[in-house]
Amino acid sequence: MARSDNLQDTLEPIFALLQKQELVESLAHRQAGSANPLVEQLVHRQHEAELSRKLHSLNAADIAHLLDMLPHKKRLFIWGLASDQQASDCLLELSENSLLHLFAETPAERLKNLLGHLEADELAVIADFVPEDLLAAVKAGLESGERDWLETTLNYDEESVGSLMSRDSLVVYSAWSVDQAIDAIRQLEELPEQTDQVFIVNEQRVLVGALPLTALLRHRGQEQLKSIMNTQVVRFLPSTQGQEAALAFERYDLICAPVVDERGRIIGRLTVETIMDFVREKNEHMELAKQGLTARADLLDPIWRGAKTRWLWLAINLITAFCATRFIALFSSSIESLVALATLMPIVASIGGNAGQQTAALMVRSLGLDQIHKHNLPLALGKEVAVSLINGLIWGSLLGALAATIYHNIGLGLVLLAAICLNLFIAAIAGIFTPLLINNLGRDPAMGTSVILTFITDSMGFFIFLGLATLYLI
Amino acid sequence: MARSDNLQDTLEPIFALLQKQELVESLAHRQAGSANPLVEQLVHRQHEAELSRKLHSLNAADIAHLLDMLPHKKRLFIWGLASDQQASDCLLELSENSLLHLFAETPAERLKNLLGHLEADELAVIADFVPEDLLAAVKAGLESGERDWLETTLNYDEESVGSLMSRDSLVVYSAWSVDQAIDAIRQLEELPEQTDQVFIVNEQRVLVGALPLTALLRHRGQEQLKSIMNTQVVRFLPSTQGQEAALAFERYDLICAPVVDERGRIIGRLTVETIMDFVREKNEHMELAKQGLTARADLLDPIWRGAKTRWLWLAINLITAFCATRFIALFSSSIESLVALATLMPIVASIGGNAGQQTAALMVRSLGLDQIHKHNLPLALGKEVAVSLINGLIWGSLLGALAATIYHNIGLGLVLLAAICLNLFIAAIAGIFTPLLINNLGRDPAMGTSVILTFITDSMGFFIFLGLATLYLI
Repeated sequence: MARSDNLQDTLEPIFALLQKQELVESLAHRQAGSANPLVEQLVHRQHEAELSRKLHSLNAADIAHLLDMLPHKKRLFIWGLASDQQASDCLLELSENSLLHLFAETPAERLKNLLGHLEADELAVIADFVPEDLLAAVKAGLESGERDWLETTLNYDEESVGSLMSRDSLVVYSAWSVDQAIDAIRQLEELPEQTDQVFIVNEQRVLVGALPLTALLRHRGQEQLKSIMNTQVVRFLPSTQGQEAALAFERYDLICAPVVDERGRIIGRLTVETIMDFVREKNEHMELAKQGLTARADLLDPIWRGAKTRWLWLAINLITAFCATRFIALFSSSIESLVALATLMPIVASIGGNAGQQTAALMVRSLGLDQIHKHNLPLALGKEVAVSLINGLIWGSLLGALAATIYHNIGLGLVLLAAICLNLFIAAIAGIFTPLLINNLGRDPAMGTSVILTFITDSMGFFIFLGLATLYLI
Repeated sequence: MARSDNLQDTLEPIFALLQKQELVESLAHRQAGSANPLVEQLVHRQHEAELSRKLHSLNAADIAHLLDMLPHKKRLFIWGLASDQQASDCLLELSENSLLHLFAETPAERLKNLLGHLEADELAVIADFVPEDLLAAVKAGLESGERDWLETTLNYDEESVGSLMSRDSLVVYSAWSVDQAIDAIRQLEELPEQTDQVFIVNEQRVLVGALPLTALLRHRGQEQLKSIMNTQVVRFLPSTQGQEAALAFERYDLICAPVVDERGRIIGRLTVETIMDFVREKNEHMELAKQGLTARADLLDPIWRGAKTRWLWLAINLITAFCATRFIALFSSSIESLVALATLMPIVASIGGNAGQQTAALMVRSLGLDQIHKHNLPLALGKEVAVSLINGLIWGSLLGALAATIYHNIGLGLVLLAAICLNLFIAAIAGIFTPLLINNLGRDPAMGTSVILTFITDSMGFFIFLGLATLYLI
């Protein structure tokens, strides 16, 4: 297994070849008729052969990386050059965006062939992207045990343990001796990867314990498994949420854990590898979701698709921004008589927004770590409000003094100070309760908080500042 | 190992007791002199005994969680009630914020005692928080091998493999047979956790291969390790960055991997557990860092400290906001003659900000996945610009029509349309190049991008809209 520290260096010659290819094509296009088509075709074929050769020396993960990096046309070209084995291994490594694209563009016959190389576990991972009729055809090609398993897995919620579990586990019977267990392991054709322990069941296949492989090595051959096994095994139901399982993996430092049905019988296994993938993907999705994007959005999307994926988010933000600025319209005459108000009002909105996001970030972390409780919430709220007032006094005074100096208007400075303090006060309260509310509605507070908070701090920033100015200055 | 699905339920009685305690104290405070101090003291002691009992039944991770949730005074009270063994186990589970607080408040004598319970590996994790003289005293108490190891580890960069590795590895010699290896493992007092393979070295302790434990179980006792081992082992140098190691763990599905010096000799081991912690902490830090906070900030901080941790960020944002609004001041007279400009200008800034953040989010993801390359960058830029122009035309026309209707001014609508298109165009370019620039400077683009981008889209939003209005409308 070679380390790919310099994957980009490995891929460099392929990029260079692709560019040469493009150059030849564009020349052919421009000089249509004039050039020698035979020479061109030869050059073209030579490049293609060289590309093929380079490609076949790469492993599937690296080809997937290359495909993810390419624009659509070149991606299809390379995809066509990859061998069936490489292409089918690639399917498990591609980004969601590339999967969608390639599934839409690959002929059904090849796709069926590629999917035929995969096992039920692997199919489960990408089943969401496979067109239904094709999936049905591929399922029909599986042996009945694999097919049943695949169908069960696909029925579970996408973020649940049931959809994350794999089929392979190392299971032995509690009545066996250490030697019997080792014999059974020797007779297996293939051992599941990421295995640091064997799961131990009784005659009804009910999980009764587990034993590290190291313990198997260290105990005497005649000892009974039931007398040396750990009986306290962390186990999961298929309905458990992946997020919860991830916390348990971290808390208890698990490598793999059994998944059991309601009667306690082993139906699958969860590995740390799956959990790491799950956590990484979830984080990535969240980062993008905060900007109203899905994991399927990509920098190399065709233009029209790129525009569409961002419409909704821009629309939501435009509407909230438009509503917030309606508060400014209320005070048009004040602005007309004191135009400095127009210059200063975005500052009040902006500092409120920043302070509110800080409070919200701390709140989101505490909610994620399950540290918020009715006993400490009032205290946290009180602290945030106090912090906001201190910061309001400090920065409000500074900016107030600056404004009073620039515009030779002490009243304006005082109004700015008061507005900043009030808006920070509102930002602190909104920064605590917006994530809390979203969380209590069963949604991820990291996601919706920002839009709502910005709307509150913007509109209140404008309203308070212009309102105070109208009352006291105009 | 009990599952703690309902940790909050487990902790509920403790919170209740703490509240009763507080009530008694505040009554005593208010009625000083009047009440019966003896009865009070009795009640107090009774509560304390009950709290102690409840506390001693919890495991260290759960106590750490409780301590993290408590305000400072109650945290110290509970900390004082925990047994030394519990408290020392807790040290490894506490949040950075709680560690800092407790280290500052615990008497040096107790702290030294608690730290004395820890092994070199464990000390390395929290050494950053230990006052220097105390650390020196604790080091002196270690046996020399452990001390040397601790000192080496502490010298590595905090985010490098050297500082993440642990000392324990299962190492056998390549000249041994399977039976000899199993015998050696049987003779070890303690086996390292999270072990799915043994590392194999030659006589110079140079890593030459590895073998899964399952393979040890399956091969015949007489076989030589060197003839059955995997020779392609993913290994790390202590200077490798943790982030890079994390990617390799994910790419190659590792459970543990050897850390070697320049000559290839094993000096430690990296486990998937450490990597998971590292990744989680890094994500958490990044989320907070985006709002200018460190992991040491907390909702329950004392007020003054809470205010201080946020000053710098608010200051940076205030300065950029102030600078951006200076563009408004340039056009005061235009606003005076057409006050609708003041109402509409925040919308232009806001849509630019949102669109820019979307482009930046995609760019940050692609940079993180190492998918940006000089061959696909121009394409990505072109696509983003095209997307921004399409969205600009659509939303600009809509808002332009709205503005023209509200203010009965078609010119104003057209200026708004043009300004939105131009600002989205600038946002697309800035959204690509800001993260790229920060990345090329060797910094994390997820962090600085937002401030710079907001400054650009705000000031350009104001400048373009008011500038165009002044040219064509005033």
